[in-house]
Amino acid sequence: MLNYIFMIAITAEAMSGALAAGRRNMDIFGVALIAFITALGGGTVRDMLLGNFPVIWTQHPIYIYLTISAGILTMYIARYMRHLHKLFLVTDAMGLVAFTVIGCNVAIDLNYPTVVVIMAGITTGIFGGILRDIMCNRTPMVLLKELYASVSLIVALFYLSLRALEINHDLNLIASFSLGLSLRLAAIRWSWSLPVFSYEDEHWRGEESEKTDK
Amino acid sequence: MLNYIFMIAITAEAMSGALAAGRRNMDIFGVALIAFITALGGGTVRDMLLGNFPVIWTQHPIYIYLTISAGILTMYIARYMRHLHKLFLVTDAMGLVAFTVIGCNVAIDLNYPTVVVIMAGITTGIFGGILRDIMCNRTPMVLLKELYASVSLIVALFYLSLRALEINHDLNLIASFSLGLSLRLAAIRWSWSLPVFSYEDEHWRGEESEKTDK
Amino acid sequence: MLNYIFMIAITAEAMSGALAAGRRNMDIFGVALIAFITALGGGTVRDMLLGNFPVIWTQHPIYIYLTISAGILTMYIARYMRHLHKLFLVTDAMGLVAFTVIGCNVAIDLNYPTVVVIMAGITTGIFGGILRDIMCNRTPMVLLKELYASVSLIVALFYLSLRALEINHDLNLIASFSLGLSLRLAAIRWSWSLPVFSYEDEHWRGEESEKTDK
Repeated sequence: MLNYIFMIAITAEAMSGALAAGRRNMDIFGVALIAFITALGGGTVRDMLLGNFPVIWTQHPIYIYLTISAGILTMYIARYMRHLHKLFLVTDAMGLVAFTVIGCNVAIDLNYPTVVVIMAGITTGIFGGILRDIMCNRTPMVLLKELYASVSLIVALFYLSLRALEINHDLNLIASFSLGLSLRLAAIRWSWSLPVFSYEDEHWRGEESEKTDK
Repeated sequence: MLNYIFMIAITAEAMSGALAAGRRNMDIFGVALIAFITALGGGTVRDMLLGNFPVIWTQHPIYIYLTISAGILTMYIARYMRHLHKLFLVTDAMGLVAFTVIGCNVAIDLNYPTVVVIMAGITTGIFGGILRDIMCNRTPMVLLKELYASVSLIVALFYLSLRALEINHDLNLIASFSLGLSLRLAAIRWSWSLPVFSYEDEHWRGEESEKTDK
Repeated sequence: MLNYIFMIAITAEAMSGALAAGRRNMDIFGVALIAFITALGGGTVRDMLLGNFPVIWTQHPIYIYLTISAGILTMYIARYMRHLHKLFLVTDAMGLVAFTVIGCNVAIDLNYPTVVVIMAGITTGIFGGILRDIMCNRTPMVLLKELYASVSLIVALFYLSLRALEINHDLNLIASFSLGLSLRLAAIRWSWSLPVFSYEDEHWRGEESEKTDK
């Protein structure tokens, strides 16, 4: 079940990656690579961080074909995808929850401490999008004001709590998905956001280099 | 033989990295680091991804000295290098093929599935340039329109096909280099490029964050 | 002793990361993540590069709590931190030396060649700042003109030389910290910098892609 949701989720993530690549006028190869990295980059960073080799997708070529195909397909159907906007928000939210739960379980199986388990869940959930944005030369969206990464954190905490209470695992999954989806969709609907830190300085080191960048 | 081509290739890649660092007004340390990362970053990402420790260059200090020296030397001879433009394009193309073939072989030795072998070859071929561009704060060139990354893909497919047919390995190398070099140089000569995906949207999520970036 | 300095150093680095996140108007989650990555990213890259699993901070949750708390606290005290500017420069310099020495020792314990030991020290010293800048979408400061990364290089060379001469380790640490701190603070005081490489070209490949970026 989680596996099917995972397949749908990586497809949706790959498509969002392809659109980001399209905004940078990348060629078909760039689109395929960004689609792949957006969908499977979070899990890759998690596995590399935890020393979990072989990295999971290397043992499941289907994930590779699926994400690359979805990315390339997006080039041709992008114009029709606006109408699927809402479907995308739902699959993306499902993906966020699925990635988080899967990431937690990988770290649990490797006996990492609980705080690292939580971080593994969040890493799986958000690092694909972070890598996508770094490769498209923009500040990672998930670190800006939308309530996205924090949904991953809350889901990880909730899922691990129910797990500690030895609640039946299927029930736990249903509850975690319900919570994660509701939170994420409510956050979009009512524009919930976290407090933002805006800092401007004139006399701090780094300011000069900042200018050099421009 | 492949080893000599590899040494020439990493020297050429290091020099291209140094020039990119110079465009960002980096100091000598930054130049040396970007030179190193451009030349050996692709292999490093491959090894970290495949869990192939120790990472190859850590066991061959000569590669480290060579790339750092080439980077620093470039600071002093950059003005004369324009005249070597064509030589550079050839060594860069040779490097792309050599990196691809070496990358495939590392993954083969570790018994990864064929599609991962191909990805290991491409990663070795193009990730040095991607890391260089990320560290110089620009969109990776190889994902834009030039026919570069796809040459790596074609070479990987060709090399692995001849290998599967049990063609003599030296012959295979000669054929792969001939194909890769011809393709890459023809692509430069006649400005061959892949289809580009240009996507503009007004109503997609992310648009607002995009503005925040600027 | 080194451990206490390390804790002070990661706190200071986390705070510098939080300020960088604030300059990009990140939310509290983004601030916490950038704080964490700035403080512990250098050691993480080193461990992933050397195949040193489990990555050190995953076994010391205190480092995670400390850096995230420091990052979040910074959001609320940033306006008062200007007055602590000089204290920050000193703790940052101490951190640079501590990270370098610790990084060298990790690579020594894994029997890497000396040049890799030096690179492990520098990686630990500077990569947190590089990751911070990449995630904030700017050219890494440490590669630009300030004398920072080179202090890490000099400290690594000095520390390893005294170690090879079998000088008492505590004496070695005192000498390395004295040298590193003096150099770094002198560099700030008198604006010492390395030679910069400025390269402009009109006829080099890449120029066109550069334009596409803008």
